[in-house]
Amino acid sequence: MSTLFGSDRPVVVVAPHPDDEVLGAGGTIARLTDAGREVHVAVVTRGMSPAFSDAFTQTVRAEARRAHDHLGVTKTHWLDLPAARLADLPHAELNEAIGGLVKDIGPGVLLVPHVGDIHLDHQHIFLSALVAARPHQDEFPETVLAYETLSETNWNAPYLSPAFLPNVFADITSTLDRKLEAFAMFESQARAAPHERSVDSLRALATLRGATVHRSACEGFVLVRHAV
Amino acid sequence: MSTLFGSDRPVVVVAPHPDDEVLGAGGTIARLTDAGREVHVAVVTRGMSPAFSDAFTQTVRAEARRAHDHLGVTKTHWLDLPAARLADLPHAELNEAIGGLVKDIGPGVLLVPHVGDIHLDHQHIFLSALVAARPHQDEFPETVLAYETLSETNWNAPYLSPAFLPNVFADITSTLDRKLEAFAMFESQARAAPHERSVDSLRALATLRGATVHRSACEGFVLVRHAV
Amino acid sequence: MSTLFGSDRPVVVVAPHPDDEVLGAGGTIARLTDAGREVHVAVVTRGMSPAFSDAFTQTVRAEARRAHDHLGVTKTHWLDLPAARLADLPHAELNEAIGGLVKDIGPGVLLVPHVGDIHLDHQHIFLSALVAARPHQDEFPETVLAYETLSETNWNAPYLSPAFLPNVFADITSTLDRKLEAFAMFESQARAAPHERSVDSLRALATLRGATVHRSACEGFVLVRHAV
Amino acid sequence: MSTLFGSDRPVVVVAPHPDDEVLGAGGTIARLTDAGREVHVAVVTRGMSPAFSDAFTQTVRAEARRAHDHLGVTKTHWLDLPAARLADLPHAELNEAIGGLVKDIGPGVLLVPHVGDIHLDHQHIFLSALVAARPHQDEFPETVLAYETLSETNWNAPYLSPAFLPNVFADITSTLDRKLEAFAMFESQARAAPHERSVDSLRALATLRGATVHRSACEGFVLVRHAV
Amino acid sequence: MSTLFGSDRPVVVVAPHPDDEVLGAGGTIARLTDAGREVHVAVVTRGMSPAFSDAFTQTVRAEARRAHDHLGVTKTHWLDLPAARLADLPHAELNEAIGGLVKDIGPGVLLVPHVGDIHLDHQHIFLSALVAARPHQDEFPETVLAYETLSETNWNAPYLSPAFLPNVFADITSTLDRKLEAFAMFESQARAAPHERSVDSLRALATLRGATVHRSACEGFVLVRHAV
Amino acid sequence: MSTLFGSDRPVVVVAPHPDDEVLGAGGTIARLTDAGREVHVAVVTRGMSPAFSDAFTQTVRAEARRAHDHLGVTKTHWLDLPAARLADLPHAELNEAIGGLVKDIGPGVLLVPHVGDIHLDHQHIFLSALVAARPHQDEFPETVLAYETLSETNWNAPYLSPAFLPNVFADITSTLDRKLEAFAMFESQARAAPHERSVDSLRALATLRGATVHRSACEGFVLVRHAV
Repeated sequence: MSTLFGSDRPVVVVAPHPDDEVLGAGGTIARLTDAGREVHVAVVTRGMSPAFSDAFTQTVRAEARRAHDHLGVTKTHWLDLPAARLADLPHAELNEAIGGLVKDIGPGVLLVPHVGDIHLDHQHIFLSALVAARPHQDEFPETVLAYETLSETNWNAPYLSPAFLPNVFADITSTLDRKLEAFAMFESQARAAPHERSVDSLRALATLRGATVHRSACEGFVLVRHAV
Repeated sequence: MSTLFGSDRPVVVVAPHPDDEVLGAGGTIARLTDAGREVHVAVVTRGMSPAFSDAFTQTVRAEARRAHDHLGVTKTHWLDLPAARLADLPHAELNEAIGGLVKDIGPGVLLVPHVGDIHLDHQHIFLSALVAARPHQDEFPETVLAYETLSETNWNAPYLSPAFLPNVFADITSTLDRKLEAFAMFESQARAAPHERSVDSLRALATLRGATVHRSACEGFVLVRHAV
Repeated sequence: MSTLFGSDRPVVVVAPHPDDEVLGAGGTIARLTDAGREVHVAVVTRGMSPAFSDAFTQTVRAEARRAHDHLGVTKTHWLDLPAARLADLPHAELNEAIGGLVKDIGPGVLLVPHVGDIHLDHQHIFLSALVAARPHQDEFPETVLAYETLSETNWNAPYLSPAFLPNVFADITSTLDRKLEAFAMFESQARAAPHERSVDSLRALATLRGATVHRSACEGFVLVRHAV
Repeated sequence: MSTLFGSDRPVVVVAPHPDDEVLGAGGTIARLTDAGREVHVAVVTRGMSPAFSDAFTQTVRAEARRAHDHLGVTKTHWLDLPAARLADLPHAELNEAIGGLVKDIGPGVLLVPHVGDIHLDHQHIFLSALVAARPHQDEFPETVLAYETLSETNWNAPYLSPAFLPNVFADITSTLDRKLEAFAMFESQARAAPHERSVDSLRALATLRGATVHRSACEGFVLVRHAV
Repeated sequence: MSTLFGSDRPVVVVAPHPDDEVLGAGGTIARLTDAGREVHVAVVTRGMSPAFSDAFTQTVRAEARRAHDHLGVTKTHWLDLPAARLADLPHAELNEAIGGLVKDIGPGVLLVPHVGDIHLDHQHIFLSALVAARPHQDEFPETVLAYETLSETNWNAPYLSPAFLPNVFADITSTLDRKLEAFAMFESQARAAPHERSVDSLRALATLRGATVHRSACEGFVLVRHAV
Repeated sequence: MSTLFGSDRPVVVVAPHPDDEVLGAGGTIARLTDAGREVHVAVVTRGMSPAFSDAFTQTVRAEARRAHDHLGVTKTHWLDLPAARLADLPHAELNEAIGGLVKDIGPGVLLVPHVGDIHLDHQHIFLSALVAARPHQDEFPETVLAYETLSETNWNAPYLSPAFLPNVFADITSTLDRKLEAFAMFESQARAAPHERSVDSLRALATLRGATVHRSACEGFVLVRHAV
């Protein structure tokens, strides 16, 4: 993976909720860690009562830990902001949470959810991640990519919300199985086909994104910025 | 199929080259003919020497005839304009060919290739089909839909050419197998995976388009116009 | 109206404020109820003091009731969220209010305001309505359409906010008069020409949307999603 | 009309076919000539046999002359390129025809058809007019505006072809009647309602474009460039 | 400056934070005041503790006063809403603050930040300014233009956030030096090259926007609406 | 230059006319050749009489040779298609010319003009280059980038033609001088400021594109596709 992800600075994957990072970039994460790269996952929100029970939240976290282990994630960071309520949070808090993380880790590559996803949490995180990545000093993430999240990205309004049209294709032929296994570990989140959030949909997406560039399996991304 | 395709006037599928109609709408065609609807396919171009040998052209036509039979197509119309050279043809000729067909058949539903496809033939046919469908008299196709063609639609430039963002999803669960069989009949055109023009890619696309609306298999379309 | 609105499940029209539903879809509502369809209007907000006096709010509601009767609306649902303050409300409350209604009624067709309208209430309702309509289970609204609201849709920023470019045209020749009468019943809301929110503007819009498809009068919509 | 049209250099209106200039800018032309401005109309194409009979072409020209007189047009220029065949013409010929005219007249304001119109002649003329207006020397048209042509602008594909979203509104309250009379003089071109190319549609469009800016009647334009 | 800025009603420049008005429109402001026009600057926010110290806020205000004097600004209005927290403010407060100002001054021309800027304050102010400028009565700003702010406009996401593509170019050859001097007076805000918020970047931008229309220096704007 | 340009396969820069490659990518070319990469320039057109004299064409070629030497270009390929007439050429000829070159050289990176440039030659070359780069076999250019050409890219219609919004920034601090020198060698093409095609404009563009990512000088590109 010697090109777009090519610097040896760490990679940070920003996930609104646990499993987004696997849905959108699980295969790429595994490929990067296979190659010895340092990959951090930042889970921005935490399910909080009354909307989410503590037990549920603990379950999801345990699932995430297993999945991240399976993919070789270097470290998982729990930012613990309230799930499904980022739109109601003082915006500066979200900026600080993500900005602090980016400053601490100093990633060369930043993977973020897509601003056109139907979930407001995704939209707000996208914007805050871009704020965190502003090139107003010498060191900033030289590569910012938006990933695709089944059950979020395709459920917004065609032509009325920002479109996800992938222009970066990461070959995950060697890691697709591990991605699907990692996703299946989210037993509380995964659904049966034909739900978009199912192993079958995820496999079909990988096949399709791969075929676009004559590969067996890919993850697609939209490039936000690359400084070289 | 009582809604968007709902009138009892005929359906016309405009195909730049044989197999586009199957790639983009094969499952929908079968579903419509299963329901007793009259479905016409208009193949706009013909491979001509020196670019294409007569033998090759005959082979493809025979494949198309088998595939259309398999899908229950009412009638195939061969417009015989020169393949890969529509951009060089006097534009009025293309308008007349498609316009004449639309006038003769009087379809209620018109399925056309996508204007953002990478092949210029597709782009010119889209425009001429819209000219043929202009609502400047009482009778015109009340529904115009653009279909998606693997190996054309995804190979244009993201964000720079018109995007294909499906807003109409036709359930083809009951006809997917027949669609894939029909496509496989184009032995001269089908490729092995991971080529986009393969049975595997086509199946993955159907799974993905289906999952977006919680169905096992769909074909996606972009609505151009619907008068009701 | 046997096509796009074709299922026999109910129709729900989501109105940010009373009269939006008439401005955007009054003729279509009347046509549907004429045909015996069940049409619900959900008025999302309520004018609250100090911004709005109780007397004013009661007046508008009485106007809405008369107008809805005139159009044959099956039932009006008052969600009673605070007008002009949806952006400040916890987002989950709006999601729950609209989501609950959609779950209770189970509409086949959902008419929503346009996300590009200048009023933030319209934008937030659009998003929450899409969340409510997510196809993550077997039953969901198979058709979602955005309507056009004079004095909101044209007052946002051309090319900078999402464009309203109608691709669905509902013939309201038989119900235009009733639509204009219903709108005139909103004496507290209607303005004299050349205000956009006037009977004259509304008639001109119907003529223009109609002419695009060779009809005497239409309402235009943007298709968000149609599963068939 | 002291603002966007404000220089005292001449105005040139480029019309693909006779009547486009009246449909799109007839009221503005009359307002400008009322104010003593020099307004030129360049009719780019001429109907040629066999597609158009000489008699027909003579008829249309006579109609155009009457209409232009009625609007006070300073001079009409007939560029005599073949109608409906600009796409087949060597592109340099069109560039030279429009470029020569712009060089000769030296307009401060250039009104052009919209690139998103369904007619290829309109699209090619838009591009050539922009080439003619390139700011590569000191003198060039400081204002370039695209006008809206009923029966062309609304008949292309929503979201797939360039959108016409007016950001300039010229008040034609004082000249609307003259515009409609001028259009009616094109007896060979005007159609009865509900055709888009009818007096009724044209009046509705003026009412609607006016209402957007609280005026009784306007013509809408899209600004391409304004140097001030 | 006899055209787009041509009425003799006042000009209002809405600045989210002090220096935005100079970055985006400093040369145009100077050109207008040189010509005797009345130009108001409305600074919407105020840095408030704990995020900003009082001393810092006083420093920036003093810098702004000097810069505005240098450009000949008629009057500076301090709206004193909390900086970097507009997204958390009740939206009606922002609407009232800007709406009140627009009502009091009655500008003919309104210059606003771009909705696609990365800073949420800019986005919210754009929307509120448009609400304040709604043409729902006889008197409203006949011209609304969005300006370009280095370090905000270019740092959002290409193709995913609204694009800034200038279509209005104001020649600032005669006032560029004064603009750069005014910007340099913001010693607490200006940065050294290659920071975007530097004198060198600002000069390069003026050269580039000028060259597009064959002028030595320009400021670029996007036209939101012009009624003439 | 270890990232987006990172494979060790050759780089091909496709130039419609001599000097486009320098305007758009001269600094990047020099940086790549400094690093020992193989860089080919394909000049697609040749000025032909009567539009261009042989002497003029020879002059420009000599200028190009000097400029390419200065930048260390490995080899220049003259495709000799007729300048300013690509739109009139059989489209297959252009496809074959560019397709043949891509097949022969087998580049890993392909730099192409922008599809939104005002010159039709640029638009047609963009499309043909994408056809040549289709991923329908194992070997294809893994990176396709569109470059920016002063006097072409900014002169098309904002919001109506495809926008150039750079998402890739190549640092050319070390090679800017050489780029400007190479451009100045095109004595027949370079113009004095404030023409866009001037050394001053080119320097301003480099400063601005650099500042966006906190670098002294950059060239901006739009990513079309990157397979990694």
